[in-house]
Amino acid sequence: MGAYSQEKYIEQLQSFHGSLAPGLIIGGAMVNLAMNTLPKDKLFDAICETPLCLPDAIQLLTPCTIGNGWLTVLNFGRFAITLYEKYGGLGVRVYLDSVKLRTYPEVHSWYFKLKPKPEQNFQLLIDQILEAGEKILSLQHVRVQPESLRRKKIGPVADCPLCGECYPVRDGLSCRACQGESPYVEVATPNPSGQNLSAAGNRAA
Amino acid sequence: MGAYSQEKYIEQLQSFHGSLAPGLIIGGAMVNLAMNTLPKDKLFDAICETPLCLPDAIQLLTPCTIGNGWLTVLNFGRFAITLYEKYGGLGVRVYLDSVKLRTYPEVHSWYFKLKPKPEQNFQLLIDQILEAGEKILSLQHVRVQPESLRRKKIGPVADCPLCGECYPVRDGLSCRACQGESPYVEVATPNPSGQNLSAAGNRAA
Repeated sequence: MGAYSQEKYIEQLQSFHGSLAPGLIIGGAMVNLAMNTLPKDKLFDAICETPLCLPDAIQLLTPCTIGNGWLTVLNFGRFAITLYEKYGGLGVRVYLDSVKLRTYPEVHSWYFKLKPKPEQNFQLLIDQILEAGEKILSLQHVRVQPESLRRKKIGPVADCPLCGECYPVRDGLSCRACQGESPYVEVATPNPSGQNLSAAGNRAA
Repeated sequence: MGAYSQEKYIEQLQSFHGSLAPGLIIGGAMVNLAMNTLPKDKLFDAICETPLCLPDAIQLLTPCTIGNGWLTVLNFGRFAITLYEKYGGLGVRVYLDSVKLRTYPEVHSWYFKLKPKPEQNFQLLIDQILEAGEKILSLQHVRVQPESLRRKKIGPVADCPLCGECYPVRDGLSCRACQGESPYVEVATPNPSGQNLSAAGNRAA
């Protein structure tokens, strides 16, 4: 799988993702198939059509990560990845094929949630995924418009007049957190006990 | 930094992220400060307030990744991370402090983009970041509502009547890609030359 043997990939997977997710073993085969179909001499970016599990296979096996901006995660809930040439947009999409999946009943019933979890046979599931390899995948040649997916430059930055932190001026007169999107329901500055939180907006701290 | 020595972290960083991004060295110090402030015996989730670079420090140094759902990336453009207790939501927010930053002029001018890139002294920047360590950071105790950030369960799935791929039924009568959100401007099934793309929607392939 990529630069790793299958055993090494599974070990890396457990360390990075925290568990041996069946979808990530399939993800390894998907990345492999896509990379083996792409020209070797091009830089490529990645799309992942689900935020569940699969982005971690891409992050482990390709140069594309969330932080470096070469991986775009779309919340389509389709088990599919695309690797595409960074500038021209020509690429390869690999997806889990529902029809081909029927040959592997434990994988099929896991993916379509046909059995409650306690009734699933985890070892059989993993064995069937490893046995299936690329045989449950299909491939399409695609073109994306790279500029539509490329992360916008952050542009000029300034201190937010409310929280005092640096923010992108393009977001408005204050940062998006101070505009009401803060995920924090309480904010406190540290005190000796370190425990007391007062009900307060982000900007109050 | 986390389980790594500083040298090992920088090596891992270059391998995972693809380059020695200055923000990721700061990110290492941020994760360290947050983890050293949190109780050792709790499970925590992470928030990253920018998609630029910083998510990769969290993914490398904590158990939280995009694929396992324990990391939420918010597009606030603030250089800040939060680690919070998974169920109760009590946590620690660490941010790059604009005021403290003034003591380190090369870091300050890099962060506020006061110098064009060719005029920046990259080695001095890295040296000042390493020298500064936690001295350019500030810390807040916060509470989030974990359920507001937790990824929703995918729920029942079915074959999309248009593309035939498995999708979450909650998204509607067809998958979101077939509802018009497809990022692909052309889709083709492979042919012997492997090159011909016809102008076609996703569902045509």
